[in-house]
Amino acid sequence: MSVVFGFLRRPKVRIDIPRLRPREDTVYPKVNLAELTPEVLPYLGQAAYVQLAIFEEVSAAIAAAPSVATKQALAPAASQALDKYERLVAEIRRRVDEPAEVIEPFTAGIDRYRAVVKGGDWYEQIASVYLTAGILDDFFTLLAAGLPGDIAPRCVSILDAETGRRALIDVLSEAIAADPVLGSRLALWGRRVVGDTLLVARSAIHLTGNPESDEQRIEPVFTEMIAAHTRRMDQLGLTA
Amino acid sequence: MSVVFGFLRRPKVRIDIPRLRPREDTVYPKVNLAELTPEVLPYLGQAAYVQLAIFEEVSAAIAAAPSVATKQALAPAASQALDKYERLVAEIRRRVDEPAEVIEPFTAGIDRYRAVVKGGDWYEQIASVYLTAGILDDFFTLLAAGLPGDIAPRCVSILDAETGRRALIDVLSEAIAADPVLGSRLALWGRRVVGDTLLVARSAIHLTGNPESDEQRIEPVFTEMIAAHTRRMDQLGLTA
Repeated sequence: MSVVFGFLRRPKVRIDIPRLRPREDTVYPKVNLAELTPEVLPYLGQAAYVQLAIFEEVSAAIAAAPSVATKQALAPAASQALDKYERLVAEIRRRVDEPAEVIEPFTAGIDRYRAVVKGGDWYEQIASVYLTAGILDDFFTLLAAGLPGDIAPRCVSILDAETGRRALIDVLSEAIAADPVLGSRLALWGRRVVGDTLLVARSAIHLTGNPESDEQRIEPVFTEMIAAHTRRMDQLGLTA
Repeated sequence: MSVVFGFLRRPKVRIDIPRLRPREDTVYPKVNLAELTPEVLPYLGQAAYVQLAIFEEVSAAIAAAPSVATKQALAPAASQALDKYERLVAEIRRRVDEPAEVIEPFTAGIDRYRAVVKGGDWYEQIASVYLTAGILDDFFTLLAAGLPGDIAPRCVSILDAETGRRALIDVLSEAIAADPVLGSRLALWGRRVVGDTLLVARSAIHLTGNPESDEQRIEPVFTEMIAAHTRRMDQLGLTA
């Protein structure tokens, strides 16, 4: 799958990545991502639509959940994603009147990706949300470092806020502990979705046009994102 | 469709219905509903699940919305319903440790009803949410009057809060104005859903066992609820 967003070039400004409050056991790499960050509006548009997509996927999982207790446990993940979406939309609205116009260009690519990683049943659906949202949150938080001025820390504080996804880990690890067959299926599924998610991340990167230096920047970031993914798989009791 | 929830009898205490802040153009009837109100926990369990159902239906409509602008316009209706659900769950949690156990008995009946009023396409889905949530909000707000002590005003303040559904009216009335055939279809659909919704409301009522006095109490309430439904249909440009 290839999603091409075609970002405008932006002036190359080096900005140190702010130290982030560690979330779960994620340790962010001390690499300079500034040159990879797209323009402010495309960044916000994509980051916002990713959160809206997470909201929609969690909501679908709530609607299909087997019990009220599970629906209730999943509810914070939906409301937190919706809240992040609204806050990113508010950032867009500070700059343009119609935030939807900024977001719309990214829907087709992200919706195609969502269809691919949707999963064949409820557990795959939950695993996809947990694993892909984890990667994309990490990624957009890292990219935020390259945004100009005070937008960077504001976006980091939006994206790095509570995800409400603890319940997804509980639901999954309980089911996996009870059913080894489900465990091996979800382990495969987890390996399956990471590739497509990294492609989406890659498509959001502003390439400088110098493939060698681009790769030098991208590689350690992706290595660290994959390591964080492996830790999330571990949390579920799965081998990445 | 018949949904029987089987409420426990409760002591007959007459409580004046608190005057509600008018919402939209709904005027609540000055009738005494206190004797019709079920026990606190079944009341809260049903009212909570209705809000969770509204959240799920709005979320499904957001996921299927034709544009980001529409998704965004519908988002407040989802977050407000989820917020009401969470606040009702908090009321249940003041009384029992496991709110889900209080809510679970009502899911089957309400889910059957939801399947019936779901609608065949996106516009029917939106119309159903707007019309049925309007009736059920009115109904549970009225019933709240019969709850003992300070639970009554607390539930009224939860249920009578902002619904975020103004966007549903806009989406529907715009589409209806542009397409008379859709208008007649939705007018039929609006008449169709009101009956099933009133059955759900009726099933939540605590009957005293005296059919004559029960009917005397129920009738003016339902008459007023139907009048409010007619006003909502009018807002959409539809004949009820």
